[in-house]
Amino acid sequence: MAVRAAVAGASGYAGGELLRLLLAHPEVEVGALTGNSNAGQRLGALQPHLLPLADRVLEATTPEVLGGHDVVFLALPHGQSAAVAEQLGPDVLVVDMGADFRLKDAGDWERFYGSPHAGTWPYGLPELPGSRAALEGSKRVAVPGCYPTAVSLALFPAYAASLAEPEAVVVAASGTSGAGKAAKPHLLGSEVMGSMSPYGVGGGHRHTPEMIQNLGAVAGEPVTVSFTPTLAPMPRGILATCTAKAKPGVTAESVRAAYEKAFADEPFVHLLPEGRWPATASVHGSNAVQIQVAYDAAAGRIIAISAIDNLAKGTAGGAVQSMNIALGLAETTGLTTIGVAP
Amino acid sequence: MAVRAAVAGASGYAGGELLRLLLAHPEVEVGALTGNSNAGQRLGALQPHLLPLADRVLEATTPEVLGGHDVVFLALPHGQSAAVAEQLGPDVLVVDMGADFRLKDAGDWERFYGSPHAGTWPYGLPELPGSRAALEGSKRVAVPGCYPTAVSLALFPAYAASLAEPEAVVVAASGTSGAGKAAKPHLLGSEVMGSMSPYGVGGGHRHTPEMIQNLGAVAGEPVTVSFTPTLAPMPRGILATCTAKAKPGVTAESVRAAYEKAFADEPFVHLLPEGRWPATASVHGSNAVQIQVAYDAAAGRIIAISAIDNLAKGTAGGAVQSMNIALGLAETTGLTTIGVAP
Amino acid sequence: MAVRAAVAGASGYAGGELLRLLLAHPEVEVGALTGNSNAGQRLGALQPHLLPLADRVLEATTPEVLGGHDVVFLALPHGQSAAVAEQLGPDVLVVDMGADFRLKDAGDWERFYGSPHAGTWPYGLPELPGSRAALEGSKRVAVPGCYPTAVSLALFPAYAASLAEPEAVVVAASGTSGAGKAAKPHLLGSEVMGSMSPYGVGGGHRHTPEMIQNLGAVAGEPVTVSFTPTLAPMPRGILATCTAKAKPGVTAESVRAAYEKAFADEPFVHLLPEGRWPATASVHGSNAVQIQVAYDAAAGRIIAISAIDNLAKGTAGGAVQSMNIALGLAETTGLTTIGVAP
Amino acid sequence: MAVRAAVAGASGYAGGELLRLLLAHPEVEVGALTGNSNAGQRLGALQPHLLPLADRVLEATTPEVLGGHDVVFLALPHGQSAAVAEQLGPDVLVVDMGADFRLKDAGDWERFYGSPHAGTWPYGLPELPGSRAALEGSKRVAVPGCYPTAVSLALFPAYAASLAEPEAVVVAASGTSGAGKAAKPHLLGSEVMGSMSPYGVGGGHRHTPEMIQNLGAVAGEPVTVSFTPTLAPMPRGILATCTAKAKPGVTAESVRAAYEKAFADEPFVHLLPEGRWPATASVHGSNAVQIQVAYDAAAGRIIAISAIDNLAKGTAGGAVQSMNIALGLAETTGLTTIGVAP
Repeated sequence: MAVRAAVAGASGYAGGELLRLLLAHPEVEVGALTGNSNAGQRLGALQPHLLPLADRVLEATTPEVLGGHDVVFLALPHGQSAAVAEQLGPDVLVVDMGADFRLKDAGDWERFYGSPHAGTWPYGLPELPGSRAALEGSKRVAVPGCYPTAVSLALFPAYAASLAEPEAVVVAASGTSGAGKAAKPHLLGSEVMGSMSPYGVGGGHRHTPEMIQNLGAVAGEPVTVSFTPTLAPMPRGILATCTAKAKPGVTAESVRAAYEKAFADEPFVHLLPEGRWPATASVHGSNAVQIQVAYDAAAGRIIAISAIDNLAKGTAGGAVQSMNIALGLAETTGLTTIGVAP
Repeated sequence: MAVRAAVAGASGYAGGELLRLLLAHPEVEVGALTGNSNAGQRLGALQPHLLPLADRVLEATTPEVLGGHDVVFLALPHGQSAAVAEQLGPDVLVVDMGADFRLKDAGDWERFYGSPHAGTWPYGLPELPGSRAALEGSKRVAVPGCYPTAVSLALFPAYAASLAEPEAVVVAASGTSGAGKAAKPHLLGSEVMGSMSPYGVGGGHRHTPEMIQNLGAVAGEPVTVSFTPTLAPMPRGILATCTAKAKPGVTAESVRAAYEKAFADEPFVHLLPEGRWPATASVHGSNAVQIQVAYDAAAGRIIAISAIDNLAKGTAGGAVQSMNIALGLAETTGLTTIGVAP
Repeated sequence: MAVRAAVAGASGYAGGELLRLLLAHPEVEVGALTGNSNAGQRLGALQPHLLPLADRVLEATTPEVLGGHDVVFLALPHGQSAAVAEQLGPDVLVVDMGADFRLKDAGDWERFYGSPHAGTWPYGLPELPGSRAALEGSKRVAVPGCYPTAVSLALFPAYAASLAEPEAVVVAASGTSGAGKAAKPHLLGSEVMGSMSPYGVGGGHRHTPEMIQNLGAVAGEPVTVSFTPTLAPMPRGILATCTAKAKPGVTAESVRAAYEKAFADEPFVHLLPEGRWPATASVHGSNAVQIQVAYDAAAGRIIAISAIDNLAKGTAGGAVQSMNIALGLAETTGLTTIGVAP
Repeated sequence: MAVRAAVAGASGYAGGELLRLLLAHPEVEVGALTGNSNAGQRLGALQPHLLPLADRVLEATTPEVLGGHDVVFLALPHGQSAAVAEQLGPDVLVVDMGADFRLKDAGDWERFYGSPHAGTWPYGLPELPGSRAALEGSKRVAVPGCYPTAVSLALFPAYAASLAEPEAVVVAASGTSGAGKAAKPHLLGSEVMGSMSPYGVGGGHRHTPEMIQNLGAVAGEPVTVSFTPTLAPMPRGILATCTAKAKPGVTAESVRAAYEKAFADEPFVHLLPEGRWPATASVHGSNAVQIQVAYDAAAGRIIAISAIDNLAKGTAGGAVQSMNIALGLAETTGLTTIGVAP
């Protein structure tokens, strides 16, 4: 019997990608689709790539519309998920693709988001040590941010194996879909094509405390993260270059061994053969994470680089993966490690 | 019982896309993969987006390697398919993704390809009137060229309904993957990004006689095609703008009606609602064809515009669709109308 | 003594490109810069590539601010230029980069723009037969639209030499800057990168009557133009593919000769050697027009293809070129035929 | 009297950009142009954006051809410059755009380039403390690498003011033209569009010792550099994100002050107003360097980010700037700080 899933926020990029994945999921039936300003419009006009849903009409985001589903995905602006989740009751699986329930520390939340903290839900990054157990059978899931997904997966093996000093330096390039579908001048094609530019420099990006939380938990000590996101001239993809000073005694071999061990049984994380490096094109549209790691002896640093699709594994794919675990389905159901390239 | 499929030419873009689709096909098991200069290499090094096949090694393209399969796909340079097909025998389904067996007229072949004509196989564009019947149960399929797919589908309804004069004018923009994976200076990223340029202008492109063949057969009279292909700064996609002078008495309504009728039952062709126009991004990675048509009363011309993914519906998707028909499977098996966007 | 130039509408793409050119013009001194919603802002925040003007502040678009200059360039939304020009008086050179004064036929204007016709000014496409004389000494210039520039230059030699039937078919690809700097969802980088799409299909684009006007004047008979503009994934550039049925007796040689004659003395139009075709990258940032022409004997059509930079020769460069003529300066002053490539 | 300049290696990207700049230089006359495999070809076929030189024919790279000029620019593969320079004699200004004479340490050279060290010439990065004096009147100039230009300028003020620990971490994104014009599969447009990927990770990039040399000289102590270059989907531009741990006592104010002081009199370096960050589009085609710096108190790091055009300031523009100094011309002659954007 199919799992009926509703999507709140179906007109945006995260919602559209989620629908693309749900349509290919053998156990899911797409139920209600809601929007705010777009309620009443045909999905064909908003998501012209989703032909099977072209004639569906967006409804308003209300408890009545979202009720009666097995799963409700929330792709809403931050601050709105708590109220909606409460109305849905404790027996519906609610998967929040926004930020509201990711952080454990209320002070962090308030500092970065400027509003009261709504709480903390099980964190939907199954590959992170300890995460799967919390997701199994849960009725609430907080889907990680796209950057924290790429960065946490690239760096946690180094911290899990006590190879790295607790001061990470991360520079990540993201495709423009990460900035959403709202029309802003700096996101115009004329502005972004042919250009690379940073933003949120110096610790200001809201994904920073999430990385610190993830890496610190694995390291067992506080970890600082110097995080610089950059906007790249491509629609999708994150390439995260993550480095940390190696602890004394680290070798190229010990680094490689730690990463091989960390990902040996992971269905979606592919540690590349030595000498090969990830490219975002290879994971376009897929739930795969491609990772490579090196040890730079001259600089004394570990360099781990990951490529993900920010909308897939970084958002909607991660959401489906966690939904599968929460519902007791096989974790890989409806997801692929095959990219659409070139 | 699974259909075992071999792919000759697995290292190129057409072969890679075919493998992506075959891996998602519920009735197919991927068998031998062959290459020429790349034989002996891991597929992971050549097609890093196809993770499930990363450890497969390319073999040489020989009858021994290709034998013992139910289907053999040929993604070879033109001129090589006939010899391989002959060695495989009459009972194996051979799907040629190259040009060798597309044209009926030997003179056309020789004029455009400069070599002896190998013959003509059933033409793998099922939506073209009369094509499905010839594909059912066939052991040989000639997959159409990418441009002829986009152009024939955009224009045949106008000719089938006798609405258009037999002189078509076509300007099409293609993503760079249509030019293949061989490294040539004018295909470098530095050259193509930020640039549009034409090529094969004035009737010289080898896909021209194929369009003429298709449209003439539907029109019941010779049709000329002025075809100008252009290279666009994107990896995939074809946007074909196809116009023809309207015959006397044509109206916007009669044009619309002809297109609605032509595509009413087609699973992969989506005639857009009036007022909306196709974009190649919407069909990225999908087997869908998005089409819109207009009648310009002032200029007296019908303008039909189609968007396809040149590698999917334009090559590998079309090949799988025709394989399905030839094998008696449901035509849509393993194929999708959902694009990967944005 | 320097020519003092004011720019109304300095925050947009046309205004920015004009400033780039004026800063490099040896006879011009940049005077007042005005904007509407952006008045009061530093130019450095709006046009960060124009470092020498970074600390200039935009003023309001008023007669007081624009007065006291030798030249005033108007880069305003259509419908606003007439009132501003009137206030500036008859002795100031006013160069209108908008559409208001391009069309001669009031009915055409009203049909395409839906407002009363403001009048007709000398048309700033000096290469068009008869245009230079009207520009010399004029105090008013209407800068052509970007598409009409590319299309008129590509096709007028065929009409001037009576080689082409009066039914032109044009498909043109434009970079996104042609759509301006206003933030609209379909112009987001996420939407346009990797995608080609048409718009204004079927005769609806406002540049159509301008092409008809230009080509009809040269042909000496009414010319219809089937015009399909497409949006290409690049910030700048227009590639216009322009075809027309050849009149009886036309040969490849007669076509070539007509184009060689038409452009023999033109400083900015480069008819490429036979066998080479234009690319928009080659004219990036330059005032050059690269053109090639072919005769397709099988289809009986002349195909002329031009590449321009829509912001340079297509707007701001054309404006400077016409200003030079109007002021009696050498026509090429401050302009270049060298593109910024790759 | 004009400076006569020859260019050896005129068919590549560096050579083409140099010619673009020399054509705009009021004191330079373009002399001989040479190539290797391209000798005998028209420049119009190789550099179609350089219309004024379209009919010039490449000659062979011989002392006879290069002799009789005031300046000879070498854009040759590394290892070839020494022999050519020797043949030209000590009185000709030789500007080497390759790597041969950049490094002071022969061991570094041999380790990274695998051939004997040719020597060390005055280093053409005038903004680096102490560099201008060595360039004045010199007959030999080693133009810096593109990455070392971007990185050294972003970081030297922090080291000059003793604000940063001697362990820099740099992640830089480069446009594809930095990889040159040789056709390699991974540089195809189909591969790079829509993709970010790293290369030369872990200290292997040949520009690393050059950065170490520059920063160490300013710091007065050895500096390590963890350098990760990435290939970005754009033809031009480098965005260098450079970070280093701050020394005790550093504040946001002391960092800002150090950068303001370092660049106060630099004509080509623009320290952006606080709150604004560089974008490569803003320096497209220009000799400007746009820089911003921040102090991340939580991570204890200084983050300096620079944007340059890799072909302009990063190669050919830097070469012209150094030529100006060497010849006693005004340093900014023929160069611009205005970018071609959008």
